Amino acid sequence: MDIENYVQQLGREARAASRIIARADSNAKNHALRAIAAAIRRESEALVAANRQDVDAARSAGLEAALLDRLTLSAQAVAAMAEGVEQVAALPDPVGEISDLRRRPSGIQVGRMRVPLGVIGIIYEARPNVTADAAALCLKSGNASILRGGSEAIHCNQAIAALVHEGLASAGLPGSVVQVVSTTDRAVVGHLIRMREHVDVIVPRGGKGLVARLLAEARVPMIQHLDGNCHVYVDDGADLGQALRIVENAKTQRYGTCNTAESLLIARSLAGRLLPPLAAMLTRKGVEIRGCPETRALVSEASAASEEDYASEFLAPIISVRVVDGIGQAIEHINHYGSHHTDAIVTENYSAAMRFLREVDSASVMVNASTRFADGFEYGLGAEIGISTDKIHARGPVGLEGLTSQKWIVLGQGEVRG
Amino acid sequence: MDIENYVQQLGREARAASRIIARADSNAKNHALRAIAAAIRRESEALVAANRQDVDAARSAGLEAALLDRLTLSAQAVAAMAEGVEQVAALPDPVGEISDLRRRPSGIQVGRMRVPLGVIGIIYEARPNVTADAAALCLKSGNASILRGGSEAIHCNQAIAALVHEGLASAGLPGSVVQVVSTTDRAVVGHLIRMREHVDVIVPRGGKGLVARLLAEARVPMIQHLDGNCHVYVDDGADLGQALRIVENAKTQRYGTCNTAESLLIARSLAGRLLPPLAAMLTRKGVEIRGCPETRALVSEASAASEEDYASEFLAPIISVRVVDGIGQAIEHINHYGSHHTDAIVTENYSAAMRFLREVDSASVMVNASTRFADGFEYGLGAEIGISTDKIHARGPVGLEGLTSQKWIVLGQGEVRG
Repeated sequence: MDIENYVQQLGREARAASRIIARADSNAKNHALRAIAAAIRRESEALVAANRQDVDAARSAGLEAALLDRLTLSAQAVAAMAEGVEQVAALPDPVGEISDLRRRPSGIQVGRMRVPLGVIGIIYEARPNVTADAAALCLKSGNASILRGGSEAIHCNQAIAALVHEGLASAGLPGSVVQVVSTTDRAVVGHLIRMREHVDVIVPRGGKGLVARLLAEARVPMIQHLDGNCHVYVDDGADLGQALRIVENAKTQRYGTCNTAESLLIARSLAGRLLPPLAAMLTRKGVEIRGCPETRALVSEASAASEEDYASEFLAPIISVRVVDGIGQAIEHINHYGSHHTDAIVTENYSAAMRFLREVDSASVMVNASTRFADGFEYGLGAEIGISTDKIHARGPVGLEGLTSQKWIVLGQGEVRG
Repeated sequence: MDIENYVQQLGREARAASRIIARADSNAKNHALRAIAAAIRRESEALVAANRQDVDAARSAGLEAALLDRLTLSAQAVAAMAEGVEQVAALPDPVGEISDLRRRPSGIQVGRMRVPLGVIGIIYEARPNVTADAAALCLKSGNASILRGGSEAIHCNQAIAALVHEGLASAGLPGSVVQVVSTTDRAVVGHLIRMREHVDVIVPRGGKGLVARLLAEARVPMIQHLDGNCHVYVDDGADLGQALRIVENAKTQRYGTCNTAESLLIARSLAGRLLPPLAAMLTRKGVEIRGCPETRALVSEASAASEEDYASEFLAPIISVRVVDGIGQAIEHINHYGSHHTDAIVTENYSAAMRFLREVDSASVMVNASTRFADGFEYGLGAEIGISTDKIHARGPVGLEGLTSQKWIVLGQGEVRG
């Protein structure tokens, strides 16, 4: 197979399909989504069987346990996949919304209309549930999509693709609205991320290695984040009980998520009172503490934190801790070592809260709340295609709105420019 | 000079300065802008003299007349430059605005805060007025900027830079908020557009050749447009007087602007009545007509339009004309040959107007108005750094808002995730 030609063909078909799905009404899109969910439920056994084929092959090939775990699809996981698609059907349709119409001195009315981006390329690891999820979000937001999942999931992904096409057909929509790459040749990715003429945005979903590789090579804009090195800063005069509760949740609720806190900054004035109970709580939960010299003087179990520790997303029960002068040094530390993802302050001081919100250069900035809230569902977006630490376009959790754009519309009555 | 080190140094200083200007209050920024305007007025003679040095050198080097014209700065142009900076001072400050605050079931309040992008790189031709204009827009929107103007304008640009720095200093702001590249070495551009770690967005201002070159090489996101192949489509049953007036203005008011109409589509049902008077008007104004066979049957002076003509931004008194079946074919033509910049329909039919607005995939879509209105000032943005035909982030005319982004803010009371 000539891979470049194959990807070009996917791109041309996606571009043509994008015109059709962009003008499809909400009823047709929701009908398709509900039909896809019903087909997934109906074919649950077949999907699990296709997945078993993938899992067996991956195990023989020696895929590591964590990846095997993400690849495996149980009957419950299939049911959750169908439910996820139905939830997307139930969300409001962002497409076509007109806002900010204002009459100008020339007589024209100028406003904005929300429209799909066009063609979205999704590149992800061997997680079959992402296939249904990403297809549903792109479809609902009026975009054509090209889905390239990890090669280990190929059988299950193709089985899901057939059900997506069945659902699209039942709503009178062409199958090319959602194209699932049918070859495992890795060269597909290289072409997809450079095909500016047919792909409007790439969303990589997967580990840091994947995203870093794509960032280095992509010519198409990406909605992505590389790292989630999130901080909690406990300010002078914070409520200590609240600080303990927030740090516990932000660090220990889940270790592998991008909105988990990886670093703790504590104002010097309360380090003596806060650090011992906090360290006891973390140690009880099995979290390793890597601290600055002041931290180590107060916490015997802490090892020394390196520069690299402060810059790390551990994704593990490890936390770096530093005692700082106060809010100025905390903000400087976060903007220097952080990843512009999500950072929180615990404070009772109004001016400190406002300053932290303004000056921390991150996609999500929080006062007196756990960083774990940085999530499309918790923010009320109803769904999430990913989280962006880029500054242009969508920033933070990205839902349906982030898969759309606003064009300008002008409503005139024959006005010409003077 | 080691150019890569020099650009890295510019980047590091810009990043540091971006933290300072991001938190500067509106008073300080406006004070700096007014001081810059005053300094420009005061030093008008010196600026004209520095410019004369540039113009003389460029003329000796054989720079072509159109470029010499854009390079030349008269005393009136200096006054206009100062006035432009004062106008930016008078605009509302977008930074810090909080919107969409909503309480979530968990108890947290989630909203968005408008913040600067960080560091903006502006790459432009030898037009000294752009130096003051771009510096003012970046400063007001809370961004640090790195300005790289065409090498022929180096003396005048350095003279303007000194006045910008004087204005910044008078407001207590560091000069590194606006850095004007001091070498004419072209290698600067190559490094600047790849320095992702220190530059958040590149805005190229200049001709198609410049933008195309940067697009091919940039690693930093760009706010740009390549072409302005704008269309007017005259629909069945349009008001013919209105159609004539709009086409005249859209095509002939100015030939060299990106929002000038380059192509005219006419519904077959009114071609016989509209084309003869329209061709007479265009011919009277010296506009060359390149048409489809049906057009040529009605307009004897029309030559044959090629595929390339339909895809061209002429920037000249030339227009391509095609008779189409109706709105469906018009939309298809525009989405195929157009540049996603600005397209207008002339119609009295409500459904056609709505369909055109929804389905034409362009940054600005207009009903019964001249494409010439696609402009930051006409849209009420108060200023314009450029026009974008990209779909992500800012689309269409880009003012202060397009130089900012929105981060999420969470206001909690100790909430943790369950």
